[in-house]
Amino acid sequence: MSSKKVAFIGLGVMGYPMAGHLANAGHTVTVFNRTKAKANKWAKQYKGKAATTPAQAAKGCDVVFVCVGMDDDVREVVLEKNGALSGMKKGAILVDHTTASADLARELETAAKKKGIGFLDAPVSGGQAGAENGVLTVMVGGAKSTFNKAAPVIDAYARAVTLLGPAGSGQLTKMVNQICIAGLVQGLAEGIHFAQQAGLDGDTVVDVISKGAAGSWQMENRGKTMLKDQFNFGFAVDWMIKDLGMSLDEANRNGALLPITSLVHQKYREIQKRGGGRWDTSSLLRLLTKQPKSKK
Amino acid sequence: MSSKKVAFIGLGVMGYPMAGHLANAGHTVTVFNRTKAKANKWAKQYKGKAATTPAQAAKGCDVVFVCVGMDDDVREVVLEKNGALSGMKKGAILVDHTTASADLARELETAAKKKGIGFLDAPVSGGQAGAENGVLTVMVGGAKSTFNKAAPVIDAYARAVTLLGPAGSGQLTKMVNQICIAGLVQGLAEGIHFAQQAGLDGDTVVDVISKGAAGSWQMENRGKTMLKDQFNFGFAVDWMIKDLGMSLDEANRNGALLPITSLVHQKYREIQKRGGGRWDTSSLLRLLTKQPKSKK
Repeated sequence: MSSKKVAFIGLGVMGYPMAGHLANAGHTVTVFNRTKAKANKWAKQYKGKAATTPAQAAKGCDVVFVCVGMDDDVREVVLEKNGALSGMKKGAILVDHTTASADLARELETAAKKKGIGFLDAPVSGGQAGAENGVLTVMVGGAKSTFNKAAPVIDAYARAVTLLGPAGSGQLTKMVNQICIAGLVQGLAEGIHFAQQAGLDGDTVVDVISKGAAGSWQMENRGKTMLKDQFNFGFAVDWMIKDLGMSLDEANRNGALLPITSLVHQKYREIQKRGGGRWDTSSLLRLLTKQPKSKK
Repeated sequence: MSSKKVAFIGLGVMGYPMAGHLANAGHTVTVFNRTKAKANKWAKQYKGKAATTPAQAAKGCDVVFVCVGMDDDVREVVLEKNGALSGMKKGAILVDHTTASADLARELETAAKKKGIGFLDAPVSGGQAGAENGVLTVMVGGAKSTFNKAAPVIDAYARAVTLLGPAGSGQLTKMVNQICIAGLVQGLAEGIHFAQQAGLDGDTVVDVISKGAAGSWQMENRGKTMLKDQFNFGFAVDWMIKDLGMSLDEANRNGALLPITSLVHQKYREIQKRGGGRWDTSSLLRLLTKQPKSKK
């Protein structure tokens, strides 16, 4: 695969190592980050360049990657004055790795198209470890021809890159992922809580049942830490609230019924309200085991 | 392992092949079944004996296995007149493979102890296929010395046989298993329903997300059949209602909170009421996709 001129906008826990993998793969990378110090640190570490605006980073690039927080953060670094789109050349490709709404994906595709620029929504799963090890799963929405050009570049940090349909399909697939996790983790939390209340040895129970019909990635990777009441790592409740909120909004439009997902969304809001917004999503167990603090 | 004289009581879809594996392993097997024709069929197929009462089957046996439906079915074939206990010799072992309450396990252990007989509660997971292929997971409660004697015999149809604690611990572990499955399958149903409403290609979505944090045995083994609206196989809703009902009863005693499990239990009752009692547990999807019939 030939070396490309690319930009990466957003150097959070995901973006920072992802941009690093692009540089290590031989691409010429310019980064932009709201906090300038982090961009400078990245540029020094990977011998790349740090730009002062998204437009400047995007100038002359073949592919521009975005990985920021919320829909409006994406709009700011892509669509507003000095946003990436204003600096991109015709024929270039914009790839948004942010987990965002499907509506935003369609909005960005329309804006990109007007300038002759290709667009892909491409949320990822695999977490910080997946980003650092370059083994993310990338769920892509957009045109097939655009996908075929960008996928070899995305490969630098992915285990699998899959096109799932037109613009927005990557985001919709990520929503399916989060919806499945919500009910699954609540079930796991209730199971582990029951095991503890019943006086069973939780580690042995998890070992025995994780091989069968109750088994899941979450049970294998979170069962033991839940039993130890450890939640200061992993995928934060704050982000899950955002993702499930978007899923519920989309469900209200497409007609899907999500009774348990909506309940678990409220449970995550309860954890957040009690100060657990940075805890891992497996902290649903805390709502079963810990008493709320009395105001008296 | 030396050949034993054993009895197997209850030749349902699980018990029939389990008893067969015991015969194939070289044990001398006598069976009892409420419907006599099935016992005769089994005896002919495996060159074993069919008894006319549980007591007769159990006479002189080293180990007596039970695998029937509900708590009261177990009481009938074990504790009542002509029940297994009345025929068993001192020093023998009674193994109950029925998924039953933890209270029943304690009750049976007490009754067995009075006669100098060992007892193990030993519910299984792995389903009909696991029984037929002899690869069940067996969750055992009881005394360690009793476990050590019976485990080599149970090995005939098991992939794993694990002692989890005193009498009742096998049942409690099976409850943890079913609690985890309830929330997990509801989450999976909502995710698949959302994918369909969003117009995504469900098969591709399942392939992509099943490798990551949303992945589970249920997604891998039921995702595709759910997308095809196929539920005429697998683990029946009728049995899941029984298992979750016992789990909720136990939770009311041990203090565990099971908010979503109790909701999913009601959902299964709704499916049963609409005639889906024999459907697989993944049929929770039907409550999201199918409209209830109008009485008008």
